[in-house]
Amino acid sequence: MEKIYYLDNAATTKTNNISIDILNKSIDEFYNPSSAYKQAISVKNNLDNARKILCDLLGGKNGKVIFTSSATESNNMFFMGVHLRKGQTVLISKAEHPSVYLAAHRLEKFGIIVKDIPLEKTGAVDFETYKKMLDESVALVSIIHVSNETGIINNIKDICAYTKKYNKNIIFHSDGVQAFGKIKVDLNVLGVDLYTISAHKVYAPRGIAALWIKNGVVIDPLLVGGGQEMGLRSSTENYFGAVSFAQIAQNVILDLDKNNAKVLQNRQNLIDLLRNSEIFDYIEVNESENQSPYILSISVPGIKGEVLANSLERDGILISTGSACSSKKAGNRTLEAMGKTNSEVIGSVRISFSAYDDYDINYIAGKLIENILRFKNII
Amino acid sequence: MEKIYYLDNAATTKTNNISIDILNKSIDEFYNPSSAYKQAISVKNNLDNARKILCDLLGGKNGKVIFTSSATESNNMFFMGVHLRKGQTVLISKAEHPSVYLAAHRLEKFGIIVKDIPLEKTGAVDFETYKKMLDESVALVSIIHVSNETGIINNIKDICAYTKKYNKNIIFHSDGVQAFGKIKVDLNVLGVDLYTISAHKVYAPRGIAALWIKNGVVIDPLLVGGGQEMGLRSSTENYFGAVSFAQIAQNVILDLDKNNAKVLQNRQNLIDLLRNSEIFDYIEVNESENQSPYILSISVPGIKGEVLANSLERDGILISTGSACSSKKAGNRTLEAMGKTNSEVIGSVRISFSAYDDYDINYIAGKLIENILRFKNII
Repeated sequence: MEKIYYLDNAATTKTNNISIDILNKSIDEFYNPSSAYKQAISVKNNLDNARKILCDLLGGKNGKVIFTSSATESNNMFFMGVHLRKGQTVLISKAEHPSVYLAAHRLEKFGIIVKDIPLEKTGAVDFETYKKMLDESVALVSIIHVSNETGIINNIKDICAYTKKYNKNIIFHSDGVQAFGKIKVDLNVLGVDLYTISAHKVYAPRGIAALWIKNGVVIDPLLVGGGQEMGLRSSTENYFGAVSFAQIAQNVILDLDKNNAKVLQNRQNLIDLLRNSEIFDYIEVNESENQSPYILSISVPGIKGEVLANSLERDGILISTGSACSSKKAGNRTLEAMGKTNSEVIGSVRISFSAYDDYDINYIAGKLIENILRFKNII
Repeated sequence: MEKIYYLDNAATTKTNNISIDILNKSIDEFYNPSSAYKQAISVKNNLDNARKILCDLLGGKNGKVIFTSSATESNNMFFMGVHLRKGQTVLISKAEHPSVYLAAHRLEKFGIIVKDIPLEKTGAVDFETYKKMLDESVALVSIIHVSNETGIINNIKDICAYTKKYNKNIIFHSDGVQAFGKIKVDLNVLGVDLYTISAHKVYAPRGIAALWIKNGVVIDPLLVGGGQEMGLRSSTENYFGAVSFAQIAQNVILDLDKNNAKVLQNRQNLIDLLRNSEIFDYIEVNESENQSPYILSISVPGIKGEVLANSLERDGILISTGSACSSKKAGNRTLEAMGKTNSEVIGSVRISFSAYDDYDINYIAGKLIENILRFKNII
């Protein structure tokens, strides 16, 4: 069988095998945590332990972790749950994931004003423009921590501090899906009120995620019913998912520095090989100084990203033209907001690494070069 | 180790071990179904196959299955998603699960009128009163198929047919969580527009459920984002959950008649032993002629249900005082609506069977009798 190089880890990651052991354990400990007998209470305690592990990993002792089914749910939950009045303003960046972007703009039908914060050419939020957008009507801000398209890291700490100094009542959310487990995250330092994390981007199962909520921040539940998750998210708890998320995230964060060094080297080797090749003139790396090593966004103007990705697939290299979620949609909001030309946007691909895979970077670079040259009619 | 008799299967069931194989397979097939390469398309096809299996098992060829994270989400989703105008009326029964009851009544803040349909003494919806409640403002009706408290089966077919004859535009939902996999369900016969099912009540994992939507019924998504599930439920798909749900449900429904006979015999043996004992005078069985064999609701006026349940726990018998979700709440809406006295409500316990466990019914009956006699100060 042909060797596959999976380089679409920003879309999803391969679930760690320890999830098998956790599922086995979950089958024995299958009791409903809401039940009253001691077996159920034990399950409830284990669930709360998973919650505590994640809270600690986030540096979030001054808040609580609410388990949800996905980052999309976490993002929808707080936009619907934060108490907003007609005429108040929500600010979100142009680089948000569709689940933030669409959930925010859905509020317009309730008379909420929703404005998009522009990006710098690097892909980071334009902080100076943001400062001017703050006014008395602003009640909620959401800025992505690490872009799922380019991997650029927003300076959430400074942006949040400025916002809180402007008006401490503004609720500040950051979508940390591509940050948690990949770069250092310390919510106590970041100063945010709400933070979204997802299991399946850090080698844990799909179907589980969380919203971290700072103490004192009041939101209504999106899902009402049995009153689970401290009344904030009804549904019988996904015990297997929650415990897998906590245990796998714990291991990943123990490995964080080692993983980052490995991924950074792979990314840099790939960039160096491309830049020192015949195609150096045809490609642009879409990145900033403050950059996650896990994502490499490249524009090859004149070659459609989907054509390049499709061609590389035949060589066993799986990459994406953008985030998997939005890959079917025309254009790419983030790259457009960075001032990229239409040709640069259409010609973009995203290469995203796993910390637990080994890659033959020479092979991957070679195939990228070969395909680009072929499409450029050079060979 | 002491033998445990788990009789709280209406709260949750033990997950079937084939889920281990499915998780193993899911780890190999970990690709994001929204991605473009052939491995992802194969995952997407398997997911759609799981969707089709469930649709077929439901007799729901004239509609589609949307995967959600829980029945609670399915129920919240359609209440928020159906297009309703101020002044329109929603009718729900008094026997609904909290996720229906609270999601419906939440609509009142949007100017929707929400009315509760009373129950007969048997626990079934009072059909004659329901008929009188129908008026031109009624736009949505939700009636539970099988009560999670008593196991009584509502005559959804006739109620839905009457409703559609009254006004074919009324959208009719039924919560089938305690019906699917336990009694025969054929949506084509029932005639409903929306139907909720849950995996973890039928030996499949927690964290996955579905909402069946009849063709032509328009609802907005609750979760917006990447546009998965035909635009109706964004989130990276829980592949392991969806495939487990379909495969396990398929096996359970193949076994349906055999399972029902087994469970029915256990239930009847238990009732007979109790009725032919010294406690026959102290207990009432809360049931109707149209009854799921999986649930046995008993009232023992004068003995608190939680005290009895707690006492039986020491004998290795795990039962509940009501649905696990609502067990922490005072009272019991369903039993109250059946006209039970306060003492009968407080003195109620729910015994719910698994089709895949063997029970020593003599032992269980003996312990029930012994404990009730002891609390009655007879021994």
